[in-house]
Amino acid sequence: MKDGVEKTDRLIVLMSDFGLRDPFAGIMKGVILSINAEAKIVDLTHDIDPFNIVQGAMVLKSTYEYFPRGSIFVAVVDPTVGSSRKGLLVEAGGRFFVGPDNGILWSALEDVAVEKFISLKNEKYFSKKVSSTFHGRDIFAPAAAWLSLGTESNEFGPIEEDPVRLNLPRAGMSDDHIIRGEILFSDRFGNLATNVSGDLLELGRNLSGNREPCISAGNKRIAGITTHYSDPTSQDKGLMALVNSWGYLEIFLPMDSAEEQSGMKRGDTVLISFP
Amino acid sequence: MKDGVEKTDRLIVLMSDFGLRDPFAGIMKGVILSINAEAKIVDLTHDIDPFNIVQGAMVLKSTYEYFPRGSIFVAVVDPTVGSSRKGLLVEAGGRFFVGPDNGILWSALEDVAVEKFISLKNEKYFSKKVSSTFHGRDIFAPAAAWLSLGTESNEFGPIEEDPVRLNLPRAGMSDDHIIRGEILFSDRFGNLATNVSGDLLELGRNLSGNREPCISAGNKRIAGITTHYSDPTSQDKGLMALVNSWGYLEIFLPMDSAEEQSGMKRGDTVLISFP
Amino acid sequence: MKDGVEKTDRLIVLMSDFGLRDPFAGIMKGVILSINAEAKIVDLTHDIDPFNIVQGAMVLKSTYEYFPRGSIFVAVVDPTVGSSRKGLLVEAGGRFFVGPDNGILWSALEDVAVEKFISLKNEKYFSKKVSSTFHGRDIFAPAAAWLSLGTESNEFGPIEEDPVRLNLPRAGMSDDHIIRGEILFSDRFGNLATNVSGDLLELGRNLSGNREPCISAGNKRIAGITTHYSDPTSQDKGLMALVNSWGYLEIFLPMDSAEEQSGMKRGDTVLISFP
Repeated sequence: MKDGVEKTDRLIVLMSDFGLRDPFAGIMKGVILSINAEAKIVDLTHDIDPFNIVQGAMVLKSTYEYFPRGSIFVAVVDPTVGSSRKGLLVEAGGRFFVGPDNGILWSALEDVAVEKFISLKNEKYFSKKVSSTFHGRDIFAPAAAWLSLGTESNEFGPIEEDPVRLNLPRAGMSDDHIIRGEILFSDRFGNLATNVSGDLLELGRNLSGNREPCISAGNKRIAGITTHYSDPTSQDKGLMALVNSWGYLEIFLPMDSAEEQSGMKRGDTVLISFP
Repeated sequence: MKDGVEKTDRLIVLMSDFGLRDPFAGIMKGVILSINAEAKIVDLTHDIDPFNIVQGAMVLKSTYEYFPRGSIFVAVVDPTVGSSRKGLLVEAGGRFFVGPDNGILWSALEDVAVEKFISLKNEKYFSKKVSSTFHGRDIFAPAAAWLSLGTESNEFGPIEEDPVRLNLPRAGMSDDHIIRGEILFSDRFGNLATNVSGDLLELGRNLSGNREPCISAGNKRIAGITTHYSDPTSQDKGLMALVNSWGYLEIFLPMDSAEEQSGMKRGDTVLISFP
Repeated sequence: MKDGVEKTDRLIVLMSDFGLRDPFAGIMKGVILSINAEAKIVDLTHDIDPFNIVQGAMVLKSTYEYFPRGSIFVAVVDPTVGSSRKGLLVEAGGRFFVGPDNGILWSALEDVAVEKFISLKNEKYFSKKVSSTFHGRDIFAPAAAWLSLGTESNEFGPIEEDPVRLNLPRAGMSDDHIIRGEILFSDRFGNLATNVSGDLLELGRNLSGNREPCISAGNKRIAGITTHYSDPTSQDKGLMALVNSWGYLEIFLPMDSAEEQSGMKRGDTVLISFP
């Protein structure tokens, strides 16, 4: 352990597009535990679609609050590894975030007051040999391990004044109270999550005099809105919507896969009017 | 930590149909570690087929004994989340089981002396905001975390007098000593597990005067029974059977996938006679 | 804990071809934690292709050094489980390796000074009932758990004088400085790893008077060599090569899957000349 550094209780949370077929996620854990044998490590997911920085940012954005304050997130979706893109450490929301400076961390934290962005430049906290293809192993995992041992974020490098920004696709409402958003993800059950928040939906409803919303997604009519997947009044009606556990509108097909049966997919437009 | 509650060594074991592509399993771990930073968490599997309560029950039933006494199992296969279905905590077999009251826990434990069924009603142990779509995060993960801190099961709610029962498909033997069962699962290797126990097979053999069994599955003849997958006397004979590591009859094809090559699938009938 | 045995900090690292769909990996963890409730367990990967001992050996060989000295690796790719094949414990490279004696451990460690091979014969360290189909659960997981408690390797059985050897496919260079290797793996991104080391490539370059290599793989011409996946000078050129994070030549297609787009696959020949 380094001089003057106190061991902490900080949890390390890993997210990547590495999948679990290859040993990449396992290797990162080995590197972390070689630096801090007591580190606690949890996987958020390693199945972000390859190279999909936007998806990685949205998953991180909607999940980090479920982890304890002080947690250290390592987010590796890194198509430009080995180029001049920098490494980043962010302190925000009482937590630490480590990953490539390609917009993934900036986007995930755009709604949070960021305390500081640090450029990961201090080679003292890198692996001895840094490859040009696997910074998850050589830079980000070691940084997380040293953070878990209590190393101060300022030790990792200088303040980054200009982190890369990446804007996530946002839903919006027009003057005539038509909400336009898009489908962001499907989950394992074939439910289709959108970027229309429950709050925006509520606002539209209020502004239109509490009229019921009329929803279409991917040019398909959604039968109605309900509160839970197995609501008996929604069975046999076809595609339904609800506000999901993240607070966003989601399209589903009761006890079936909306994705497979409807052919709707990520990027398809979602339109909501209050006629 | 709550007054009068002792930290325990209880392991938390997670099973669900969430898959690992989405962050749902990771979020449950974050919620648990936010309540008990020292919790030890292990995944049993998150790849129960979506909505398949019977499969979840059978996997839990055949595996929980390999975990230490005192372990806390969280079993989330929960198609009716958000409806009036209740949440359940079961003490049985020296272990704790948490999940929806939809039959998954009752079935998994039907051969065990259950000490008590508790209805998860005490909102003190829920997350602050309970969604109608993700009780794994909002009710079951917190319950497991509090149990791991030593909270008494009686604190979570009243005794549940009438938990939902779900009967698993059972194999049986007719008066003429013909055993009828079915294929329950395929595993990763394409081996097909049945619900015919090694004990039932042995009984049939004894009652028939130690005759050798004649096995068919999915209307296909099984060449014979052996003890291990690579038994040299069973090579090139086609489909074979053995009593697997759970004590049940399993159909396999040496060094190949019985499932892919035979077309047999879950639910297909298995017939055993002693001619 | 056994008499005279000191609890250690040894990490247990699991690798298998079990996949994560079935509960097999979870069960091994339950068995380990039933023997040593404090054991730290990490997954390397459970997605080795079914029965592929060579792949398992190569993954273990190229990854074990990223884990702390003292780590205990459990490597279960075991098509002949239940036959006369023995179980093995190896001390090498400051670490412990447990698995079937089918060549997987010998190959993974062929470049390391092995301290000893032990035949896992002492039934005191087996599960009470040993199946003929799941030694991962009944023999290898218990051995790892006892090792993590400090049990001496000599206690597990006698020295194995003649462990099974399995030679991994090696690349070589002919007298006219033509390197011949093969494609070993694809990873999640569709990158194709070969068995041609960066060192061998460098040697060829030197012996040919620093000429640039001309590479073909699977009868397809590779456009050139670069240092990282997103090198701007390599975009739109088609298939490229680099020396990957393990120090081996790898074929890739910028921001795409070389495997899918080229049709190249494991076993395809890689030829490098210096014309």
